Amino acid sequence: MTVYLVGAGPGDPGLITAKGLDLIRSCDALVYDVLVAPELVAEAPEDALLIPRETIRQSQLNDLLVDLGGRGLEVVRLKGGDPLIFGRGGEEALELAAADIPFQIVPGVSALSAVPASAGIPITHRGVSAQVTLVSGHSATGDDLDFDQLAKTPGTLVVFMGLGHLEEIASRLIAAGKDPSTPSAVVSRGTHPDGESVTGELQQIAGLAVGLGSPALLVVGDVVTVGAQIAARFVANGAMTVQ
Amino acid sequence: MTVYLVGAGPGDPGLITAKGLDLIRSCDALVYDVLVAPELVAEAPEDALLIPRETIRQSQLNDLLVDLGGRGLEVVRLKGGDPLIFGRGGEEALELAAADIPFQIVPGVSALSAVPASAGIPITHRGVSAQVTLVSGHSATGDDLDFDQLAKTPGTLVVFMGLGHLEEIASRLIAAGKDPSTPSAVVSRGTHPDGESVTGELQQIAGLAVGLGSPALLVVGDVVTVGAQIAARFVANGAMTVQ
Repeated sequence: MTVYLVGAGPGDPGLITAKGLDLIRSCDALVYDVLVAPELVAEAPEDALLIPRETIRQSQLNDLLVDLGGRGLEVVRLKGGDPLIFGRGGEEALELAAADIPFQIVPGVSALSAVPASAGIPITHRGVSAQVTLVSGHSATGDDLDFDQLAKTPGTLVVFMGLGHLEEIASRLIAAGKDPSTPSAVVSRGTHPDGESVTGELQQIAGLAVGLGSPALLVVGDVVTVGAQIAARFVANGAMTVQ
Repeated sequence: MTVYLVGAGPGDPGLITAKGLDLIRSCDALVYDVLVAPELVAEAPEDALLIPRETIRQSQLNDLLVDLGGRGLEVVRLKGGDPLIFGRGGEEALELAAADIPFQIVPGVSALSAVPASAGIPITHRGVSAQVTLVSGHSATGDDLDFDQLAKTPGTLVVFMGLGHLEEIASRLIAAGKDPSTPSAVVSRGTHPDGESVTGELQQIAGLAVGLGSPALLVVGDVVTVGAQIAARFVANGAMTVQ
Protein backbone atom coordinates (compact mmCIF):
# COMPACT_ATOMS: atom_id res chain seq x y z
CA MET A 1 0.00 0.00 0.00
CA THR A 2 1.44 3.29 -1.11
CA VAL A 3 0.02 6.68 -2.03
CA TYR A 4 1.84 8.15 -5.02
CA LEU A 5 1.73 11.93 -5.40
CA VAL A 6 2.20 12.09 -9.17
CA GLY A 7 2.69 15.11 -11.41
CA ALA A 8 0.64 14.84 -14.60
CA GLY A 9 2.63 17.51 -16.40
CA PRO A 10 1.51 20.78 -17.98
CA GLY A 11 -1.40 19.60 -20.17
CA ASP A 12 -0.33 17.43 -23.10
CA PRO A 13 -0.87 13.86 -21.82
CA GLY A 14 2.39 12.77 -23.51
CA LEU A 15 4.28 14.92 -21.02
CA ILE A 16 3.56 12.72 -18.00
CA THR A 17 6.61 10.76 -16.86
CA ALA A 18 7.06 7.12 -17.85
CA LYS A 19 6.95 6.21 -14.16
CA GLY A 20 3.78 8.21 -13.53
CA LEU A 21 2.03 6.54 -16.46
CA ASP A 22 3.05 3.07 -15.23
CA LEU A 23 1.63 3.88 -11.79
CA ILE A 24 -1.72 5.02 -13.25
CA ARG A 25 -1.94 1.82 -15.30
CA SER A 26 -1.58 -0.37 -12.22
CA CYS A 27 -3.37 1.62 -9.50
CA ASP A 28 -6.36 0.58 -7.38
CA ALA A 29 -7.60 4.15 -6.96
CA LEU A 30 -6.99 7.35 -8.92
CA VAL A 31 -7.73 10.72 -7.31
CA TYR A 32 -7.27 13.33 -10.00
CA ASP A 33 -7.43 17.08 -10.46
CA VAL A 34 -10.07 18.08 -13.00
CA LEU A 35 -7.45 19.92 -15.05
CA VAL A 36 -5.45 16.77 -15.86
CA ALA A 37 -5.88 15.30 -19.34
CA PRO A 38 -8.81 12.85 -19.65
CA GLU A 39 -6.48 10.62 -21.71
CA LEU A 40 -4.47 9.99 -18.54
CA VAL A 41 -7.53 9.16 -16.44
CA ALA A 42 -8.52 6.71 -19.18
CA GLU A 43 -5.23 4.83 -18.65
CA ALA A 44 -6.35 3.58 -15.22
CA PRO A 45 -7.43 -0.08 -14.98
CA GLU A 46 -11.12 -0.70 -15.69
CA ASP A 47 -11.83 -1.71 -12.11
CA ALA A 48 -9.93 1.17 -10.52
CA LEU A 49 -11.79 3.59 -8.28
CA LEU A 50 -11.86 6.97 -10.09
CA ILE A 51 -12.32 10.03 -7.90
CA PRO A 52 -12.31 13.50 -9.50
CA ARG A 53 -11.11 16.16 -7.12
CA GLU A 54 -13.56 18.88 -7.95
CA THR A 55 -15.74 19.75 -5.03
CA ILE A 56 -13.50 18.19 -2.37
CA ARG A 57 -11.82 20.65 -0.02
CA GLN A 58 -8.10 20.20 0.69
CA SER A 59 -8.68 18.97 4.24
CA GLN A 60 -11.23 16.41 3.06
CA LEU A 61 -8.88 15.37 0.28
CA ASN A 62 -6.06 14.77 2.76
CA ASP A 63 -8.40 12.60 4.84
CA LEU A 64 -9.49 10.70 1.73
CA LEU A 65 -5.89 9.91 0.75
CA VAL A 66 -5.13 8.70 4.28
CA ASP A 67 -8.30 6.58 4.24
CA LEU A 68 -7.57 4.99 0.83
CA GLY A 69 -3.94 4.37 1.71
CA GLY A 70 -4.94 2.90 5.07
CA ARG A 71 -7.17 0.36 3.31
CA GLY A 72 -4.09 -1.09 1.65
CA LEU A 73 -4.80 0.25 -1.82
CA GLU A 74 -2.26 1.43 -4.35
CA VAL A 75 -3.39 5.05 -4.73
CA VAL A 76 -2.35 7.55 -7.39
CA ARG A 77 -3.01 11.19 -6.52
CA LEU A 78 -2.65 12.81 -9.95
CA LYS A 79 -1.99 16.55 -9.92
CA GLY A 80 -1.47 19.05 -12.73
CA GLY A 81 2.15 20.05 -13.37
CA ASP A 82 4.54 19.13 -10.57
CA PRO A 83 3.15 18.16 -7.15
CA LEU A 84 5.42 20.58 -5.29
CA ILE A 85 5.33 23.71 -7.49
CA PHE A 86 2.17 25.43 -6.24
CA GLY A 87 0.62 21.96 -6.11
CA ARG A 88 0.08 21.59 -2.35
CA GLY A 89 1.76 18.19 -2.54
CA GLY A 90 3.74 19.07 0.58
CA GLU A 91 0.55 19.38 2.59
CA GLU A 92 -0.65 15.99 1.39
CA ALA A 93 2.76 14.46 2.13
CA LEU A 94 2.72 15.85 5.69
CA GLU A 95 -0.77 14.41 6.33
CA LEU A 96 0.24 11.01 4.96
CA ALA A 97 3.45 11.05 6.99
CA ALA A 98 1.53 11.95 10.16
CA ALA A 99 -0.82 9.00 9.57
CA ASP A 100 2.07 6.60 8.87
CA ILE A 101 0.81 5.94 5.34
CA PRO A 102 3.69 5.09 2.98
CA PHE A 103 3.93 7.54 0.11
CA GLN A 104 6.15 8.52 -2.78
CA ILE A 105 6.49 11.80 -4.62
CA VAL A 106 6.78 11.34 -8.39
CA PRO A 107 7.73 14.69 -9.94
CA GLY A 108 6.14 16.05 -13.09
CA VAL A 109 6.95 18.52 -15.84
CA SER A 110 6.01 21.92 -14.48
CA ALA A 111 4.28 24.57 -16.54
CA LEU A 112 7.17 26.83 -15.48
CA SER A 113 9.32 26.08 -18.52
CA ALA A 114 7.03 23.87 -20.61
CA VAL A 115 4.30 26.46 -21.13
CA PRO A 116 6.63 29.30 -22.20
CA ALA A 117 8.43 26.71 -24.40
CA SER A 118 5.14 25.97 -26.15
CA ALA A 119 5.31 29.56 -27.41
CA GLY A 120 9.01 29.27 -28.25
CA ILE A 121 10.17 31.15 -25.13
CA PRO A 122 13.21 29.83 -23.21
CA ILE A 123 12.97 31.01 -19.57
CA THR A 124 16.76 31.02 -19.36
CA HIS A 125 19.04 31.97 -22.25
CA ARG A 126 22.78 32.58 -22.23
CA GLY A 127 23.56 36.27 -22.23
CA VAL A 128 19.91 37.20 -21.75
CA SER A 129 18.65 35.65 -18.51
CA ALA A 130 20.40 33.52 -15.90
CA GLN A 131 17.77 33.98 -13.19
CA VAL A 132 14.13 32.94 -12.95
CA THR A 133 11.66 34.16 -10.36
CA LEU A 134 8.40 32.28 -9.96
CA VAL A 135 5.37 33.59 -8.07
CA SER A 136 1.67 32.90 -7.97
CA GLY A 137 -0.72 35.67 -8.95
CA HIS A 138 -3.70 33.74 -7.65
CA SER A 139 -4.62 36.11 -4.87
CA ALA A 140 -2.79 39.09 -6.26
CA THR A 141 -4.66 41.73 -4.42
CA GLY A 142 -0.97 42.37 -4.10
CA ASP A 143 -0.67 41.99 -0.36
CA ASP A 144 1.14 38.69 -0.70
CA LEU A 145 3.57 39.81 -3.42
CA ASP A 146 6.48 42.18 -2.83
CA PHE A 147 6.23 44.26 -6.00
CA ASP A 148 9.07 46.59 -5.00
CA GLN A 149 11.36 43.62 -4.81
CA LEU A 150 9.96 41.89 -7.93
CA ALA A 151 10.41 45.05 -10.00
CA LYS A 152 14.15 45.08 -9.20
CA THR A 153 14.72 41.36 -9.81
CA PRO A 154 16.97 40.63 -12.79
CA GLY A 155 16.18 37.87 -15.28
CA THR A 156 12.83 36.30 -16.06
CA LEU A 157 9.66 36.68 -14.00
CA VAL A 158 7.04 33.94 -14.37
CA VAL A 159 3.61 34.39 -12.79
CA PHE A 160 1.36 31.36 -12.36
CA MET A 161 -2.40 31.79 -12.10
CA GLY A 162 -2.31 35.51 -12.77
CA LEU A 163 -4.76 35.72 -15.68
CA GLY A 164 -7.47 37.33 -13.58
CA HIS A 165 -5.11 39.98 -12.22
CA LEU A 166 -2.93 40.91 -15.21
CA GLU A 167 -3.81 44.60 -15.18
CA GLU A 168 -3.02 44.94 -11.49
CA ILE A 169 0.18 42.86 -11.67
CA ALA A 170 1.52 44.85 -14.63
CA SER A 171 0.62 48.25 -13.22
CA ARG A 172 2.04 47.49 -9.78
CA LEU A 173 5.31 46.24 -11.31
CA ILE A 174 5.53 49.43 -13.37
CA ALA A 175 4.65 51.61 -10.37
CA ALA A 176 7.48 49.90 -8.48
CA GLY A 177 9.97 50.81 -11.19
CA LYS A 178 9.82 48.04 -13.78
CA ASP A 179 10.36 49.36 -17.32
CA PRO A 180 6.88 49.64 -18.93
CA SER A 181 8.37 48.44 -22.23
CA THR A 182 9.73 45.17 -20.79
CA PRO A 183 8.93 42.36 -23.26
CA SER A 184 6.08 40.24 -21.89
CA ALA A 185 3.95 37.31 -22.93
CA VAL A 186 0.82 35.56 -21.77
CA VAL A 187 0.69 31.90 -22.77
CA SER A 188 -2.75 30.33 -22.50
CA ARG A 189 -3.35 26.58 -22.36
CA GLY A 190 0.26 25.92 -23.33
CA THR A 191 1.04 22.38 -24.63
CA HIS A 192 -2.69 21.85 -25.32
CA PRO A 193 -3.83 21.73 -28.96
CA ASP A 194 -5.82 24.93 -28.42
CA GLY A 195 -2.92 26.78 -26.81
CA GLU A 196 -2.32 30.39 -27.81
CA SER A 197 -0.15 33.29 -26.72
CA VAL A 198 0.24 37.03 -27.01
CA THR A 199 3.39 39.13 -26.65
CA GLY A 200 3.94 42.84 -26.18
CA GLU A 201 5.22 45.44 -23.76
CA LEU A 202 4.43 44.99 -20.09
CA GLN A 203 2.25 48.11 -20.14
CA GLN A 204 0.09 46.61 -22.92
CA ILE A 205 0.03 42.95 -22.00
CA ALA A 206 -3.18 42.92 -19.95
CA GLY A 207 -5.11 44.45 -22.84
CA LEU A 208 -3.58 42.07 -25.36
CA ALA A 209 -4.51 39.05 -23.26
CA VAL A 210 -8.22 39.86 -23.02
CA GLY A 211 -10.20 36.78 -24.03
CA LEU A 212 -7.45 34.22 -23.48
CA GLY A 213 -8.50 31.11 -21.56
CA SER A 214 -7.04 29.68 -18.39
CA PRO A 215 -4.77 28.24 -17.24
CA ALA A 216 -2.30 30.87 -18.40
CA LEU A 217 1.19 32.04 -17.48
CA LEU A 218 2.61 35.56 -17.57
CA VAL A 219 6.28 35.80 -18.60
CA VAL A 220 8.13 39.11 -18.17
CA GLY A 221 11.66 39.65 -19.43
CA ASP A 222 13.97 39.83 -22.41
CA VAL A 223 13.67 36.10 -23.07
CA VAL A 224 10.30 36.92 -24.66
CA THR A 225 12.25 38.60 -27.48
CA VAL A 226 14.36 35.47 -27.96
CA GLY A 227 11.14 33.48 -28.08
CA ALA A 228 9.79 35.76 -30.79
CA GLN A 229 12.87 34.99 -32.91
CA ILE A 230 12.36 31.26 -32.47
CA ALA A 231 8.59 31.40 -32.92
CA ALA A 232 8.65 33.67 -35.98
CA ARG A 233 10.84 31.18 -37.75
CA PHE A 234 8.91 28.08 -36.89
CA VAL A 235 5.56 29.67 -37.62
CA ALA A 236 6.86 30.92 -40.98
CA ASN A 237 8.22 27.50 -41.81
CA GLY A 238 5.10 25.65 -40.79
CA ALA A 239 6.99 22.44 -40.20
CA MET A 240 8.46 23.64 -36.94
CA THR A 241 6.40 23.16 -33.86
CA VAL A 242 6.99 23.23 -30.18
CA GLN A 243 5.27 20.83 -27.89
CA MET B 1 13.04 14.97 -40.63
CA THR B 2 12.83 16.68 -37.27
CA VAL B 3 15.27 17.46 -34.49
CA TYR B 4 13.67 16.90 -31.10
CA LEU B 5 15.19 18.79 -28.17
CA VAL B 6 14.16 16.41 -25.40
CA GLY B 7 14.52 16.77 -21.64
CA ALA B 8 15.70 13.52 -20.02
CA GLY B 9 14.64 14.60 -16.55
CA PRO B 10 16.66 14.94 -13.35
CA GLY B 11 18.44 11.55 -13.22
CA ASP B 12 16.09 8.63 -12.56
CA PRO B 13 15.40 7.24 -16.07
CA GLY B 14 11.74 6.69 -15.11
CA LEU B 15 11.30 10.44 -14.95
CA ILE B 16 11.62 11.03 -18.69
CA THR B 17 8.30 11.90 -20.33
CA ALA B 18 6.29 9.24 -22.16
CA LYS B 19 6.68 11.29 -25.35
CA GLY B 20 10.44 11.65 -24.90
CA LEU B 21 10.84 7.91 -24.40
CA ASP B 22 8.78 7.16 -27.53
CA LEU B 23 10.99 9.51 -29.55
CA ILE B 24 14.19 7.83 -28.33
CA ARG B 25 12.76 4.43 -29.25
CA SER B 26 12.14 5.47 -32.85
CA CYS B 27 15.02 7.86 -33.60
CA ASP B 28 17.68 7.58 -36.30
CA ALA B 29 20.27 9.48 -34.28
CA LEU B 30 20.63 10.19 -30.56
CA VAL B 31 22.91 13.00 -29.40
CA TYR B 32 23.05 12.81 -25.61
CA ASP B 33 24.59 14.61 -22.67
CA VAL B 34 26.91 12.35 -20.71
CA LEU B 35 24.91 13.01 -17.54
CA VAL B 36 21.72 11.36 -18.86
CA ALA B 37 20.92 7.88 -17.61
CA PRO B 38 22.54 5.07 -19.67
CA GLU B 39 19.20 3.23 -19.43
CA LEU B 40 17.69 5.90 -21.68
CA VAL B 41 20.49 5.70 -24.24
CA ALA B 42 19.95 1.93 -24.29
CA GLU B 43 16.34 2.51 -25.41
CA ALA B 44 17.46 3.78 -28.84
CA PRO B 45 17.03 1.37 -31.80
CA GLU B 46 19.99 -0.94 -32.40
CA ASP B 47 20.89 0.74 -35.67
CA ALA B 48 20.58 4.29 -34.38
CA LEU B 49 23.60 6.57 -34.52
CA LEU B 50 24.66 7.24 -30.89
CA ILE B 51 26.67 10.39 -30.29
CA PRO B 52 27.75 11.28 -26.73
CA ARG B 53 28.15 15.00 -26.25
CA GLU B 54 31.28 15.04 -24.17
CA THR B 55 34.10 16.75 -25.95
CA ILE B 56 31.94 18.58 -28.47
CA ARG B 57 31.79 22.37 -28.03
CA GLN B 58 28.38 24.07 -28.17
CA SER B 59 29.04 25.65 -31.58
CA GLN B 60 30.13 22.31 -33.04
CA LEU B 61 27.11 20.66 -31.45
CA ASN B 62 24.78 23.18 -33.08
CA ASP B 63 26.40 22.47 -36.46
CA LEU B 64 26.08 18.73 -35.87
CA LEU B 65 22.36 18.99 -35.14
CA VAL B 66 21.80 21.07 -38.27
CA ASP B 67 23.83 18.56 -40.30
CA LEU B 68 21.96 15.51 -38.97
CA GLY B 69 18.58 17.20 -39.39
CA GLY B 70 19.50 18.32 -42.89
CA ARG B 71 20.18 14.72 -43.88
CA GLY B 72 16.55 13.91 -43.25
CA LEU B 73 17.11 11.96 -40.06
CA GLU B 74 14.85 11.84 -37.04
CA VAL B 75 17.21 13.23 -34.42
CA VAL B 76 16.78 13.22 -30.64
CA ARG B 77 18.96 15.70 -28.77
CA LEU B 78 18.68 14.36 -25.22
CA LYS B 79 19.56 16.80 -22.47
CA GLY B 80 19.58 16.49 -18.68
CA GLY B 81 16.61 18.04 -16.90
CA ASP B 82 14.57 20.44 -19.03
CA PRO B 83 16.05 21.75 -22.30
CA LEU B 84 15.27 25.37 -21.45
CA ILE B 85 16.21 25.61 -17.75
CA PHE B 86 19.95 26.26 -17.92
CA GLY B 87 20.02 23.71 -20.75
CA ARG B 88 21.01 25.97 -23.66
CA GLY B 89 18.14 24.51 -25.66
CA GLY B 90 17.23 28.01 -26.82
CA GLU B 91 20.60 28.35 -28.54
CA GLU B 92 20.13 25.05 -30.34
CA ALA B 93 16.59 26.03 -31.32
CA LEU B 94 17.80 29.35 -32.77
CA GLU B 95 20.48 27.59 -34.84
CA LEU B 96 18.01 25.03 -36.15
CA ALA B 97 15.48 27.75 -36.94
CA ALA B 98 18.13 29.77 -38.80
CA ALA B 99 18.98 26.70 -40.90
CA ASP B 100 15.31 25.94 -41.62
CA ILE B 101 15.55 22.56 -39.91
CA PRO B 102 12.20 21.52 -38.39
CA PHE B 103 12.44 21.01 -34.65
CA GLN B 104 10.33 20.40 -31.60
CA ILE B 105 10.97 21.14 -27.96
CA VAL B 106 9.87 18.31 -25.65
CA PRO B 107 10.06 19.53 -22.05
CA GLY B 108 11.47 17.48 -19.22
CA VAL B 109 11.23 17.28 -15.45
CA SER B 110 13.65 19.87 -14.12
CA ALA B 111 15.90 19.27 -11.14
CA LEU B 112 14.36 22.48 -9.75
CA SER B 113 11.58 20.73 -7.83
CA ALA B 114 12.42 17.04 -8.37
CA VAL B 115 15.82 17.12 -6.67
CA PRO B 116 14.64 18.94 -3.50
CA ALA B 117 11.61 16.57 -3.54
CA SER B 118 13.98 13.60 -3.44
CA ALA B 119 15.02 14.88 0.00
CA GLY B 120 11.40 15.56 1.01
CA ILE B 121 11.65 19.32 0.44
CA PRO B 122 8.72 21.12 -1.29
CA ILE B 123 10.06 24.29 -2.96
CA THR B 124 6.66 25.95 -2.43
CA HIS B 125 4.49 25.35 0.61
CA ARG B 126 1.36 27.18 1.68
CA GLY B 127 2.08 29.65 4.45
CA VAL B 128 5.85 29.10 4.13
CA SER B 129 6.94 30.00 0.60
CA ALA B 130 4.98 31.30 -2.37
CA GLN B 131 8.01 32.46 -4.36
CA VAL B 132 10.93 30.58 -5.90
CA THR B 133 14.10 32.16 -7.26
CA LEU B 134 16.37 30.07 -9.44
CA VAL B 135 19.95 30.98 -10.32
CA SER B 136 23.04 29.18 -11.53
CA GLY B 137 26.11 29.18 -9.30
CA HIS B 138 28.27 27.78 -12.08
CA SER B 139 30.53 30.79 -12.45
CA ALA B 140 29.79 32.28 -9.09
CA THR B 141 32.82 34.42 -8.80
CA GLY B 142 29.78 36.45 -7.94
CA ASP B 143 30.04 38.99 -10.71
CA ASP B 144 27.05 37.51 -12.48
CA LEU B 145 24.85 37.21 -9.39
CA ASP B 146 23.26 40.14 -7.61
CA PHE B 147 23.74 39.02 -4.00
CA ASP B 148 22.26 42.21 -2.53
CA GLN B 149 19.07 41.49 -4.37
CA LEU B 150 19.10 37.73 -3.72
CA ALA B 151 19.58 38.29 0.03
CA LYS B 152 16.37 40.34 0.16
CA THR B 153 14.28 37.96 -1.97
CA PRO B 154 11.45 36.29 -0.05
CA GLY B 155 10.62 32.62 -0.45
CA THR B 156 12.87 29.83 -1.64
CA LEU B 157 16.25 30.26 -3.33
CA VAL B 158 17.48 27.37 -5.49
CA VAL B 159 21.03 27.40 -6.85
CA PHE B 160 21.94 25.05 -9.69
CA MET B 161 25.55 24.01 -10.22
CA GLY B 162 26.82 25.74 -7.10
CA LEU B 163 28.60 22.84 -5.41
CA GLY B 164 32.04 24.20 -6.18
CA HIS B 165 31.18 27.64 -4.82
CA LEU B 166 29.07 26.92 -1.73
CA GLU B 167 31.31 28.75 0.73
CA GLU B 168 31.37 31.87 -1.41
CA ILE B 169 27.65 31.80 -2.21
CA ALA B 170 26.70 31.38 1.47
CA SER B 171 29.11 34.01 2.76
CA ARG B 172 28.12 36.57 0.13
CA LEU B 173 24.42 36.02 0.85
CA ILE B 174 25.11 36.53 4.57
CA ALA B 175 27.29 39.58 3.92
CA ALA B 176 24.40 41.03 1.90
CA GLY B 177 22.04 40.62 4.84
CA LYS B 178 20.63 37.10 4.62
CA ASP B 179 20.04 35.58 8.07
CA PRO B 180 22.98 33.22 8.74
CA SER B 181 20.60 30.77 10.41
CA THR B 182 18.33 30.42 7.35
CA PRO B 183 17.50 26.71 6.89
CA SER B 184 19.49 25.33 3.95
CA ALA B 185 20.07 22.04 2.20
CA VAL B 186 22.42 20.61 -0.39
CA VAL B 187 20.91 17.71 -2.32
CA SER B 188 23.45 15.64 -4.23
CA ARG B 189 22.54 13.31 -7.08
CA GLY B 190 18.86 13.65 -6.26
CA THR B 191 16.53 10.97 -7.76
CA HIS B 192 19.57 8.70 -8.33
CA PRO B 193 19.91 5.59 -6.12
CA ASP B 194 23.06 7.08 -4.58
CA GLY B 195 21.44 10.45 -3.85
CA GLU B 196 22.15 12.07 -0.49
CA SER B 197 21.52 15.38 1.20
CA VAL B 198 22.59 17.52 4.14
CA THR B 199 20.64 20.23 5.92
CA GLY B 200 21.69 22.95 8.33
CA GLU B 201 21.98 26.70 8.77
CA LEU B 202 23.16 28.73 5.80
CA GLN B 203 26.35 29.65 7.67
CA GLN B 204 27.21 25.95 8.10
CA ILE B 205 25.99 24.44 4.86
CA ALA B 206 29.25 24.62 2.88
CA GLY B 207 31.08 22.70 5.59
CA LEU B 208 28.32 20.13 5.91
CA ALA B 209 28.35 19.50 2.16
CA VAL B 210 32.05 18.68 1.91
CA GLY B 211 32.45 15.39 0.08
CA LEU B 212 29.05 15.36 -1.64
CA GLY B 213 29.11 14.50 -5.33
CA SER B 214 27.78 16.47 -8.25
CA PRO B 215 25.37 17.34 -9.65
CA ALA B 216 23.98 19.04 -6.57
CA LEU B 217 21.45 21.74 -5.75
CA LEU B 218 21.53 24.29 -2.94
CA VAL B 219 18.14 25.15 -1.42
CA VAL B 220 17.86 28.11 0.97
CA GLY B 221 14.66 28.92 2.84
CA ASP B 222 12.11 27.82 5.41
CA VAL B 223 10.80 25.04 3.14
CA VAL B 224 13.88 23.09 4.23
CA THR B 225 12.28 22.83 7.68
CA VAL B 226 9.06 21.50 6.15
CA GLY B 227 11.18 18.97 4.26
CA ALA B 228 12.81 17.86 7.49
CA GLN B 229 9.34 17.12 8.94
CA ILE B 230 8.42 15.04 5.89
CA ALA B 231 11.80 13.32 5.64
CA ALA B 232 12.10 12.51 9.35
CA ARG B 233 8.84 10.65 9.19
CA PHE B 234 9.54 8.66 6.07
CA VAL B 235 13.04 7.75 7.13
CA ALA B 236 11.72 6.62 10.53
CA ASN B 237 9.00 4.57 8.90
CA GLY B 238 11.26 2.96 6.33
CA ALA B 239 8.39 2.27 3.97
CA MET B 240 8.15 5.86 2.85
CA THR B 241 10.33 6.95 0.02
CA VAL B 242 10.50 9.86 -2.30
CA GLN B 243 11.51 9.47 -5.88
